[in-house]
Amino acid sequence: MKDLVSTLTLEEKIGQLIQIAPFFYIEKIDKNVFGPLLDLGISEEEIFLTGSVLGIKDAEEMIEVQKTYLEKSRHKIPLMFMADIIHGYKTIFPVPLAMAAAFNPNLVKKAARISSIEAQTAGIHVTFSPMADLTRDPRWGRVVEGFGEDPYLNGVLAASMVQGYQHDGIDKEGNLASCVKHFAGYGLSEAGRDYNTTDVSRLNLHQYYLTGYKKALDAGARLVMTAFNLIEGVPATTNAYLLREVLRDQYQFDGVVISDYDSLKETIEHGTSKDEKDAARQGIIAGLDIEMATAAYFRNLPALIQENKVDIALIDEAVLRVLELKRDLGLFDNPYKGASVTKAKQLVLSEAHKKASLEVALESAVLLKNDGGTLPLKKEMRVALLGNYATSKDTIGPWSWHGNPSDNNSLDDVLNGYAASLYVNDTLEAHLLDETSINDSDILVVAIGESRRESGEAHSKTNIKLSNQQERFINDLKQFNKKIVLVLFNGRPLDLSGVIDQSNAILETFFLGTCSSEAIAMLLYNEKNPSGKLPMSFPRNVGQVPIYYNYLNTGRPYKNDGNEYTSFYLDEKNDPLFSFGYGLSYSQFEFSNLIVKNAVFYKGETFQFSIDVTNTSAFDGYEVVQVYLRDLVAEVSRPVKELKAFNKVFVKKNETVTLEFLLDDEAFSYVHRDLSFESDAGDFILYVGNSSTSTLETKITMKEGKL
Amino acid sequence: MKDLVSTLTLEEKIGQLIQIAPFFYIEKIDKNVFGPLLDLGISEEEIFLTGSVLGIKDAEEMIEVQKTYLEKSRHKIPLMFMADIIHGYKTIFPVPLAMAAAFNPNLVKKAARISSIEAQTAGIHVTFSPMADLTRDPRWGRVVEGFGEDPYLNGVLAASMVQGYQHDGIDKEGNLASCVKHFAGYGLSEAGRDYNTTDVSRLNLHQYYLTGYKKALDAGARLVMTAFNLIEGVPATTNAYLLREVLRDQYQFDGVVISDYDSLKETIEHGTSKDEKDAARQGIIAGLDIEMATAAYFRNLPALIQENKVDIALIDEAVLRVLELKRDLGLFDNPYKGASVTKAKQLVLSEAHKKASLEVALESAVLLKNDGGTLPLKKEMRVALLGNYATSKDTIGPWSWHGNPSDNNSLDDVLNGYAASLYVNDTLEAHLLDETSINDSDILVVAIGESRRESGEAHSKTNIKLSNQQERFINDLKQFNKKIVLVLFNGRPLDLSGVIDQSNAILETFFLGTCSSEAIAMLLYNEKNPSGKLPMSFPRNVGQVPIYYNYLNTGRPYKNDGNEYTSFYLDEKNDPLFSFGYGLSYSQFEFSNLIVKNAVFYKGETFQFSIDVTNTSAFDGYEVVQVYLRDLVAEVSRPVKELKAFNKVFVKKNETVTLEFLLDDEAFSYVHRDLSFESDAGDFILYVGNSSTSTLETKITMKEGKL
Repeated sequence: MKDLVSTLTLEEKIGQLIQIAPFFYIEKIDKNVFGPLLDLGISEEEIFLTGSVLGIKDAEEMIEVQKTYLEKSRHKIPLMFMADIIHGYKTIFPVPLAMAAAFNPNLVKKAARISSIEAQTAGIHVTFSPMADLTRDPRWGRVVEGFGEDPYLNGVLAASMVQGYQHDGIDKEGNLASCVKHFAGYGLSEAGRDYNTTDVSRLNLHQYYLTGYKKALDAGARLVMTAFNLIEGVPATTNAYLLREVLRDQYQFDGVVISDYDSLKETIEHGTSKDEKDAARQGIIAGLDIEMATAAYFRNLPALIQENKVDIALIDEAVLRVLELKRDLGLFDNPYKGASVTKAKQLVLSEAHKKASLEVALESAVLLKNDGGTLPLKKEMRVALLGNYATSKDTIGPWSWHGNPSDNNSLDDVLNGYAASLYVNDTLEAHLLDETSINDSDILVVAIGESRRESGEAHSKTNIKLSNQQERFINDLKQFNKKIVLVLFNGRPLDLSGVIDQSNAILETFFLGTCSSEAIAMLLYNEKNPSGKLPMSFPRNVGQVPIYYNYLNTGRPYKNDGNEYTSFYLDEKNDPLFSFGYGLSYSQFEFSNLIVKNAVFYKGETFQFSIDVTNTSAFDGYEVVQVYLRDLVAEVSRPVKELKAFNKVFVKKNETVTLEFLLDDEAFSYVHRDLSFESDAGDFILYVGNSSTSTLETKITMKEGKL
Repeated sequence: MKDLVSTLTLEEKIGQLIQIAPFFYIEKIDKNVFGPLLDLGISEEEIFLTGSVLGIKDAEEMIEVQKTYLEKSRHKIPLMFMADIIHGYKTIFPVPLAMAAAFNPNLVKKAARISSIEAQTAGIHVTFSPMADLTRDPRWGRVVEGFGEDPYLNGVLAASMVQGYQHDGIDKEGNLASCVKHFAGYGLSEAGRDYNTTDVSRLNLHQYYLTGYKKALDAGARLVMTAFNLIEGVPATTNAYLLREVLRDQYQFDGVVISDYDSLKETIEHGTSKDEKDAARQGIIAGLDIEMATAAYFRNLPALIQENKVDIALIDEAVLRVLELKRDLGLFDNPYKGASVTKAKQLVLSEAHKKASLEVALESAVLLKNDGGTLPLKKEMRVALLGNYATSKDTIGPWSWHGNPSDNNSLDDVLNGYAASLYVNDTLEAHLLDETSINDSDILVVAIGESRRESGEAHSKTNIKLSNQQERFINDLKQFNKKIVLVLFNGRPLDLSGVIDQSNAILETFFLGTCSSEAIAMLLYNEKNPSGKLPMSFPRNVGQVPIYYNYLNTGRPYKNDGNEYTSFYLDEKNDPLFSFGYGLSYSQFEFSNLIVKNAVFYKGETFQFSIDVTNTSAFDGYEVVQVYLRDLVAEVSRPVKELKAFNKVFVKKNETVTLEFLLDDEAFSYVHRDLSFESDAGDFILYVGNSSTSTLETKITMKEGKL
């Protein structure tokens, strides 16, 4: 590849570092697209110097763009096609936040695998996924795109997603290269407002925020996307500490670094670049390879090199990485790799893929409340299906731009096949309901929640309750004296304080994707027992945020002992309404026999224990066994509890399953003051249970020496 | 002093590093005091080795404690007496947040001066004030004790307070030594919950959070109190970066560092100290001189020295600093310095002091709203005085433990001397009001707000609205079709969205202290024209916090241009309801003739400009002229606006005053990536106006070279 680089002119080299939209290459496509793309200001000939393409619809479009490009470019280096395949191409899987709730890495892997297969038929080579931004603030709309508040779960699932996309190699057809994003700390957006500033110490950056990206890279992710936010006052896209010191030097990452949409040029708005030329200079020096959606590199790198302000070696290095990726993707052998109208017809939205989507959806919903066995429903029940999602097909959630809600079935359509009778009304005004039908019903199922556009990128909110109208509607339903089951649709943890007491059961579905309605029906009727666990805590009100289970103890923890001078609120509890890891099942599980093999162990030695999980109920079910540690004394203050392992287990009614766990040294390690990651000898508390709050515990000790 | 140190035994040395409560020394005082003091576990003889005293009531108590101590101690080194004199001893001044609203450093100085005079009569030598913690989160109860969200205002006022306390020297009678707190970053308490964890990058720590303490130290503050929170995972009290690297090495501070109450021992709860011995070791190594309220040093330093884990030089150094402070306070000449029952009777709560408190109070209230000239009231008006503060004397606010509400007059008592007729009812139930009396009134003055115990230490809230009952009451008053004037009492910025449209005028008083009622009456009747400006922004709702005027632009600032992908909320505006620097007057002011002397100036050169302020109204009045800068391009992203100077000016009706401003290099400087503080050549926008939002502006340029 180095030879190839040397055959390119400077303009051709820089072209490889530019990514633009498909319509630039082919005339018939509508050029009336919003945004900075129109400001590119490069000539038509220059378009055929660019190296990669952002967003492509289908195989036909891809083939046309590639063909046109190869005809017109001198060097005939194929374009690389990238797109946002976030939770499916056309077969839409649950939103990532919901997939996280499954606590099942294999399902995440499967979803990514199928996303790759479908997206590759459109000739897409790279997906901008996973988003490994740790999220602790439900106001931020983009929590829907991530895996929640826990660094370990986030890391495991980000890695699984990468493995799913890249599968047996990005050279193989049907696999995508994975671009992990947004490096780094984007989830810290202040006051939960998207694109807002962020601040974090290096300690906490490494301790909590970088781990997700790192795990994705360890799993082989071939690209990294920079974040919109600042770290230490410097935009991530031109941040040499992040891109050179951490990513290249510390992590030894040799893949491609790409900006987020317009984020190089936006350093001007940040006030850290004087102009595009300054932005280009800072970007290439910091280690940014590809500039997305703008052409600051294209316009300015030649002059910067001529003026000796940028070393040509930096360009060559970046171009080499881009070409190596194209080579590894097999594009030099087949520029149209994967793109196939025939295969698209055969594979996209196939029954097998929908079945897989259903399978993921069935584990991604979280049963938050189920008083007195309100659920499961029985087939002989007469059901009133109410709420704004009663008849909606729009359950694909944000960031599913190839997906189409019309491919879905609505909940009323599906429930018609289950209920003895079904009265359906999607009004949110109780007085518009047919009273007789309601009175004739055995139970009210209220499918309600946020619209698809209330979460996702740029869609942040200060108020995380259901709407006033929705809360009033649920309150008004109380007059009918029927049991109320809420089926919630939303892209973030909600403040449910206004509806929790008004309902008898709550099934949190987030957005379950193409087979949402089928999954909900199966869960309501116990054709599948709910098994999801919350990946983010649900606060009691927005005044508690940020709130997360793995908090620090503080010097004055609240102990309910009458001491006024402790860390608490006068008007609210400290804990969330529902904590991380929480989720009910129709089964009841008991945990017992926490048997530790080596309660005193040596540093480096594997720590082992087993636990019995007994299903004491009349339903077979799945339980997520969660293992937490607390490091009692450390060089820096450590969380009261941190997830270190989990295992989803199927336990038949009245049976007991014994699970073995092994924890290696990494589980006991943390980032020290000098940013080194290692374990210290000392005491730990081991917690085992089915949520971050309900746990068995025992003290264990790591000793120095021996090994 | 070094000689004196060398005459002390190790135990005597360590004793100087311990601070305990007065009751330990004298029997007759009630020993039944809550807290860790009872856990001290040192013998009665050892008590007479300790070096300073926390909290003393009055001269009699001080004299008795000192006398007993000097009789029983071998070395006869006098005790040093410290106390929380936060906004007055018995003559209570407005809470610091209110004093900040005065934008008048001289008044802060005067308040501190009188606080010193009064407190010294009780034999107090050191006050734990000012609190220079920058505060951006109104949920945090301790915002009441600080100067708000702006680093510059915070620094100026913290320095003024120190100058007021220490006046012409701490050796002089009537002056206190000032202990600035809480070093560092305590105002960052996460989710606004007191004592909660904090996190901040070094860049922002130095850029925004350390400046207040630094200005207090530059003004001569003799002590520093450590904070309860963590910085980079390490409790401030044992944080060598803060206490050694920043405070000693960088700031060259050679005064005394004292822990906060129990905060050394609390490093065990933080999980960074194994036990008290470990805490003692870390504390003395980090640079903590005096341990407040616990005896980890006393119990453990001898063994640590014996075991060579602590160098005796560290002890000697700390003791030397304590003894030097005692010497500088003149305690070796007169251990009873200041303590005088006679002087207390003469000075404490004197008419002169009350007059000064009134003077400060008159400038500390902020007129937030005044539609159609609702205010000022006219003497011929019949007034209905309502609300829970109508008859209350409890207007001294939190942290005024020597103060007594019974020294105050209630608002109804004072307004009786103003109104043509006054109907008074302090119910919060509208149906309990006398309808005839209300109907006979010309205007409703509703004195309402938080209780004293809803803000201050440990008193954080997730909901920052008035209570539901209060909001309902104000809503219910609308039925009477009378103009409504709200007089607010509270210790934090409130969410006023529920009452803003229901009222015609709002006077924000926070807690104005001993002369609150007199000040309010004078302001309502324009015996003094309101002139306060908000030192913290009032959010539209708690979901916006943290919110502050000096935010960063971000890469995608909201521009209301239809671009969906910008930084905004779907359900709320980005800006606060009332921004920093905002406050009305009965006068109207116009700003004009912004004349810049040197629009292009050289680095190091003083930048000069003048502005005309014209009072176009029929009332004489005060205006706070505020000067802001924006640094357009910098090495790190800089705020959209930063206060750099202000001047409160009196302008008679229909007159114009011309103000000159000089900005030196510090105004243009900022903390760089390498933490150096300096200015860079480049363009700046200069804003001048009467709030952080309403401003004239012009572009100016700093050049390198010349000087």
